Amino acid sequence: MPEKIIFNRLAIIGAGLIGSSIARAARAKGTVKTIVTTARTEKTRRRVVELGFADVVVDANALAAMDADCVIVCVPVGDCGEVAKEIAGALKPGAIVSDVGSVKGAIIRDMAPHIPKNVHFVPAHPVAGTEHSGPDAGFAELFENRWCILTPPDHTDAAAVKKMQAFWQALGSHVEVMNAEHHDLVLAITSHLPHLIAYNIVGTAADLESRTLLEVIKFSAGGFRDFTRIAASDPTMWRDIFLNNKDAVLEMLGRFNDDLSILTRAIRDGDGDTLFDLFTRTRAIRRSIIEVGQETPETDFGRWHAEHPEAGKK
Amino acid sequence: MPEKIIFNRLAIIGAGLIGSSIARAARAKGTVKTIVTTARTEKTRRRVVELGFADVVVDANALAAMDADCVIVCVPVGDCGEVAKEIAGALKPGAIVSDVGSVKGAIIRDMAPHIPKNVHFVPAHPVAGTEHSGPDAGFAELFENRWCILTPPDHTDAAAVKKMQAFWQALGSHVEVMNAEHHDLVLAITSHLPHLIAYNIVGTAADLESRTLLEVIKFSAGGFRDFTRIAASDPTMWRDIFLNNKDAVLEMLGRFNDDLSILTRAIRDGDGDTLFDLFTRTRAIRRSIIEVGQETPETDFGRWHAEHPEAGKK
Repeated sequence: MPEKIIFNRLAIIGAGLIGSSIARAARAKGTVKTIVTTARTEKTRRRVVELGFADVVVDANALAAMDADCVIVCVPVGDCGEVAKEIAGALKPGAIVSDVGSVKGAIIRDMAPHIPKNVHFVPAHPVAGTEHSGPDAGFAELFENRWCILTPPDHTDAAAVKKMQAFWQALGSHVEVMNAEHHDLVLAITSHLPHLIAYNIVGTAADLESRTLLEVIKFSAGGFRDFTRIAASDPTMWRDIFLNNKDAVLEMLGRFNDDLSILTRAIRDGDGDTLFDLFTRTRAIRRSIIEVGQETPETDFGRWHAEHPEAGKK
Repeated sequence: MPEKIIFNRLAIIGAGLIGSSIARAARAKGTVKTIVTTARTEKTRRRVVELGFADVVVDANALAAMDADCVIVCVPVGDCGEVAKEIAGALKPGAIVSDVGSVKGAIIRDMAPHIPKNVHFVPAHPVAGTEHSGPDAGFAELFENRWCILTPPDHTDAAAVKKMQAFWQALGSHVEVMNAEHHDLVLAITSHLPHLIAYNIVGTAADLESRTLLEVIKFSAGGFRDFTRIAASDPTMWRDIFLNNKDAVLEMLGRFNDDLSILTRAIRDGDGDTLFDLFTRTRAIRRSIIEVGQETPETDFGRWHAEHPEAGKK
C-alpha cells in the first residue's frame, strides 16, 4: 500500500533504544521505504546489521542525512547541536529534521542555528522508553498508545508539522503540539524530577556500610526496587537532561522540598491526620493515569505475571 | 499428608491483602487444618465467606483467638496493641502470637505487655505486598521467593521461633531472624523512605494548577507513573508506619536530603561529572537485586507484557 509511505528515505542518527525502536516500528507499519542509520562504533554497526532493522548502516552522520526526506536525531541531548552542525551541509531542500530529546528548549537553542533555511525543523519527544539502552533493547511496539510531543518553533511550516504528526501516529502514538518551554516544565515533574529522586535514593542506599547495603538489596521488595529500575536508566542521557533543563528541574525540586519539609514535620510531631490526608489524595492520581490508558491496572505493574509466567491468574 | 500440618488451628485477625494471602497460601500448601478469620464489617465478613479462603469467619477477635495454635494479627501497626489486649484472655497456653507489621520495635512495645506468660510471641514481617488492599486483593503466591523477617524478643522460646520459620518457609518465603531495632533501620531505607518520597512527589504534582495536573497524568509514562503505584498504597497502614518508625525514617530522610543537596548543587553548577558518576553507580544496585532474585529482569517490570497481552515477544 504505497499510500502508507510517509517518507521515502528515513535517516536515524543513533541506533539506541529509541532510534532502533523507531526503525523497527516504521518498518513494521510500512511508513517508510528505506531506513538508513548510523552507529558510532564498528561493533555497534555490525550488531545493527545483524539485527536487520535498517537497510543501510553508515559511520558518518552527514552520509546518512544525504538524500533523506526525514532525519531523526536519536542521540543524548548534549550531542544534538554537534550532530546538527555535522549534517547541515548534507540536508536536501525540503527535508525535515527532528529529534527525540526529553528536553526541548535546549535542543532548539543548540540545533536550530545549524538548520538551513530550506529545511524544516520539527523537534519531537516520544514519551516512551525503558530502563534498557542500545540497539538490542528496542522494539516496534514501544510507542503504541504513548504520547509524542512536537514543539515546532514559531513559523515552522505547517505541512512539515503535519507530516511528523502523521509519522508518529502511524507508529501508534498520540501526538500533542506545545511550545518548548511548557514541555520542559511539564516533563520536569513527570519525568525529570522522578528520575532525580530515584537516582538520589538509590545513591543514599549505595553509601550505607556494606552489611546494610546487602540487606537493602535482599529486602528491596518493600518498595526500593521500583526506584532502582528508574535509576538504572542511561547515565549519559540523564546527565544531559539535567544539565539542559536546569531551571524547570530546580523549580520543581524547590516545590518537592517544601512539601517534604511539611511531611517531615508531620512525622516528627506525630501528626497522623496530615499524613493520612496526603496518602488518600495521592491514590486518586493513579486511578486517573490508569483511566487515561497510560498505565496497566495489573497488580505490581504486571510484574507478578512476569515473575510467575507458569502460574495461572490468582 | 498430615506431616505438612504446622498448626491445627490458625487464626488470622484481619482479612486484608496480607491476611487473606496468608490464608490462601496456608490452605494451598496444606500447612494448617482449620483457618478462622475476623473482619470488622458485616459486608467484609460476607465477602470473605464468598471468597472461601477461611473455614470460619467471626466478628470478635477474642472469639477467633480461642483454641488457635497460632494467631497472626494482620491489622495496621497502630491497631496491634489494642488487638493484643482483646485476644489476651482467650489465648490457649502454648499458642503462638505473631503479626505482619512493617515496623517491629513499636509492635513489640505495644503488643508484648498484653501477651500472657504461657503464650509465645514471635513478631514477623513478610516483605511482600502490592498496591491493592482488602480480601479480594490477596493471592496464594504473594510470599513466594520473598523474605519474611522474624524479630523475636530476647528469651523467646526457640521451638516457637522454629515453628513460625517452618510456617513461612512452607508459604514459599525465605526467613531471616534479626533484632527489631535493626529491622526498623533496614526497612526505613528499603521501604519506608521510598514510600514517603513517592507520596511526596505525587502530592507535589497534585498541587499543580489543574491544566498542568492533567498534563502530568497524560505524560506520566516518563517515570512519574511508577511513583503513583507506590503512592496508591493503603493510607492507614502507611500513616501508622511513619508514626511508629519515626527515628529511623527521620535518620534516613536526613541522609537523603544531604545527598539531594549535592545533586541540586551539581545541577545548578552544571557539574556533569558528579551527575554521571552517581547515575553509573546506581545501575549496579539494580543488577544486584535482579541477581539475588528479588526482581524480574523483564523490561519495565514486565509491564510491557501486561499492556500487550496479545503481542508476542519482541
